[in-house]
Amino acid sequence: MTYCVGLLLNDGIVCLSDTRTNAGLDNISTYRKMFTFTVPGDRAIVIMTSGSLSVTQTALARLDEAASDIEATPQTSILQAPTMLQVAEIVGRTLSETSEEVASRMGASASGASASLIVAGQRRDGDMRVFLIYPEGNFIEATDDTPYLQIGEHKYGKPILDRVVTPETSLSDAKKAVLLSMDSTLRSNLSVGMPLDLAIIKKDALQISEQRRIKARDAAFAKMSRSWSDALRDAFTKIEI
Amino acid sequence: MTYCVGLLLNDGIVCLSDTRTNAGLDNISTYRKMFTFTVPGDRAIVIMTSGSLSVTQTALARLDEAASDIEATPQTSILQAPTMLQVAEIVGRTLSETSEEVASRMGASASGASASLIVAGQRRDGDMRVFLIYPEGNFIEATDDTPYLQIGEHKYGKPILDRVVTPETSLSDAKKAVLLSMDSTLRSNLSVGMPLDLAIIKKDALQISEQRRIKARDAAFAKMSRSWSDALRDAFTKIEI
Repeated sequence: MTYCVGLLLNDGIVCLSDTRTNAGLDNISTYRKMFTFTVPGDRAIVIMTSGSLSVTQTALARLDEAASDIEATPQTSILQAPTMLQVAEIVGRTLSETSEEVASRMGASASGASASLIVAGQRRDGDMRVFLIYPEGNFIEATDDTPYLQIGEHKYGKPILDRVVTPETSLSDAKKAVLLSMDSTLRSNLSVGMPLDLAIIKKDALQISEQRRIKARDAAFAKMSRSWSDALRDAFTKIEI
Repeated sequence: MTYCVGLLLNDGIVCLSDTRTNAGLDNISTYRKMFTFTVPGDRAIVIMTSGSLSVTQTALARLDEAASDIEATPQTSILQAPTMLQVAEIVGRTLSETSEEVASRMGASASGASASLIVAGQRRDGDMRVFLIYPEGNFIEATDDTPYLQIGEHKYGKPILDRVVTPETSLSDAKKAVLLSMDSTLRSNLSVGMPLDLAIIKKDALQISEQRRIKARDAAFAKMSRSWSDALRDAFTKIEI
């Protein structure tokens, strides 16, 4: 499985993904699930993936190929599409076509041939937007009421987001929130694993403002994880019932 | 859906269940999911249910009828079975027979005809035991390494249990832990709802030591929930990354 989360805040977009994939519990690998597409000054896009690796890899490869094709048009390239909505539509179409192809090849055993994506970014003169693209290519969008979207193992890390994230949350608090949300997921579900990929797009920056891989032995992450555990236990002992 | 959790601690057993059932999001009801069976001084048993209401109600009604039958034997009555293991086996058999009957009547649409149970308790001269009974009637048991079992929407409330519960946890801390675990679940998942049922069986008490329904407007629960939110937010602001 996977855990990816994208926050849409007044100050920018914060994305975090894990890297664990598995074909059965006895076949675990590390694959990047976060991909960035930028034309500095024009657009910055982050795509995160969850689901069948054969579907997501092929869909991303096709998006990449379509964007670098010399005959690319605003209808086919996410680097040329005039709005983030149209970027989401190109990604959705590519995802659903890829899923269908893989599923038709797999026949009866096709239940595993589905995938979901988060597409987040901003185009020049447009708003920042975060979309969750379903396997069929349709999508929903983060709003002020629900400023975050998750794919994969979303339940363990949802309570902390529900408690602390609002559109007004600062980027540094948001970074903390997604890392703690991931920390809860990592602790309780083996199918989500380090390293992590973090990306931040500041409002109107039109480039990836921060991108970072957090490795398994990252000292700052380990310290944060320990401090959070201690703080939770401390809070726990102080609560009265 | 449902959330039920049972802890097996050195000092006793702590059980908590919600009461929300739904047939679609537009058909929500309140049904008790916790049932107690006691012969004071001889045994105390708590059964919690998750899954198809028609299966769990019928299975529980049959267990009840079998226990009060004048021809009841230690092989058929959970009030006479000589050990908790045999109680679990009677419950498992009753559950799988009921599921099969309902499924065969439902035919092709039988995917909803399954249910899981937690069976917790102690028989005189025996150990305290907590079992999770699967729809097919087989079961697993809580141990020192994994001192809790959950059924239903278990993911939201797992991180807090993973962090604070060990066999040495006191009964009052355990009560707090299951209530906070439920609180996280209630906040993030509409299919789990108040009121709650709480039961505690102290070690060697051979009776239900505490049993209580926590209503939707329970002041103490609301206060605990608020304090926990405040404590979490407070801890969150203090964490450094």
